[in-house]
Amino acid sequence: MSAEIKLRTKGEGDVRDITADAAKAVSDSKVKDGIATIFVVGSTAAITTLEFEPGLVADMRGAAERLFPKGIEYEHHRRWDDGNGRSHVRAAFVGPSVTIPIVKGRLALGTWQQIILLEYDVRPRERTVVVQVVGR
Amino acid sequence: MSAEIKLRTKGEGDVRDITADAAKAVSDSKVKDGIATIFVVGSTAAITTLEFEPGLVADMRGAAERLFPKGIEYEHHRRWDDGNGRSHVRAAFVGPSVTIPIVKGRLALGTWQQIILLEYDVRPRERTVVVQVVGR
Amino acid sequence: MSAEIKLRTKGEGDVRDITADAAKAVSDSKVKDGIATIFVVGSTAAITTLEFEPGLVADMRGAAERLFPKGIEYEHHRRWDDGNGRSHVRAAFVGPSVTIPIVKGRLALGTWQQIILLEYDVRPRERTVVVQVVGR
Repeated sequence: MSAEIKLRTKGEGDVRDITADAAKAVSDSKVKDGIATIFVVGSTAAITTLEFEPGLVADMRGAAERLFPKGIEYEHHRRWDDGNGRSHVRAAFVGPSVTIPIVKGRLALGTWQQIILLEYDVRPRERTVVVQVVGR
Repeated sequence: MSAEIKLRTKGEGDVRDITADAAKAVSDSKVKDGIATIFVVGSTAAITTLEFEPGLVADMRGAAERLFPKGIEYEHHRRWDDGNGRSHVRAAFVGPSVTIPIVKGRLALGTWQQIILLEYDVRPRERTVVVQVVGR
Repeated sequence: MSAEIKLRTKGEGDVRDITADAAKAVSDSKVKDGIATIFVVGSTAAITTLEFEPGLVADMRGAAERLFPKGIEYEHHRRWDDGNGRSHVRAAFVGPSVTIPIVKGRLALGTWQQIILLEYDVRPRERTVVVQVVGR
């Protein structure tokens, strides 16, 4: 059973906590024992887990900029002038989805572990995150 | 229900779009509501999603070389002289699989989002990718 | 069906092979055709696959330190003085889980491909890894 989370991001560096929305999809599904896959549609955003607090959100931005800098050449820009080569590469390295066990009807997350959407695109985007629940 | 994709890569830096093969496995499974896990067997290749165009393929190669360079020492080489320490480390960081929701019988990918196999090994390899579909 | 793997790590840089425990959970589940999600609870450890040998374990440590160094500023430390900003960022980039197909009752891993827990926290931790099996 799938649900969609729709959100509008502010563009590059926006990090959003989507745990409550994912938990609601799990609850609505009535699945007690299974998995939930949280997947972002599109190739310039990523999903992972993080302790969602402003310091770590800044640290995630810093790491992305350090590893995949804005100021270097991207071949992507030779064909497309959207200037977001780094966005694609960052998203591909982190990955578009996370899969989390559902145990006794709840996501098996730690207390300080939230599901986050990382917006890497250079402009605000309307994002669709699919939460797919499989189990019984 | 599982299917196998077999392919022969050209070695380091080869990036292959396996979306059509994964979509065929989903279609053959008749599953309308579920997930597909696309998993590469072996520890020197990785799977993620990317807008599959030559510029980004080059950018993914550039990022891998910048982050996990060829020219530094790898302890792996002290025990094995296959010279592919960087291949293992790159593959472990990106990860061996991606899991994608199946909604109304189709993979919930964006239009510009393809499933790719990243070959990181230093020599051509015969690769087996398992597409496992779970749902109903 | 879910099982828990409990282990005590030695803190930063500890890498543990949990393949046998995950395989036992798959075997106990009697599932022949499906997937297993191996997920670490908490936000300072990660799961991926690796050829588990001491050289590559050292190389994974080296890469983590090179990409997300100990010696730089982390905003996380302004709010929390546990000094583990790098641990969170490393864990979020690698990711908390891996999902692996189960084919004919067995994990579809390569011979030299093990499931590993990467401990990134700066102190020893009691870890819970959930192995969730879905299929039939």
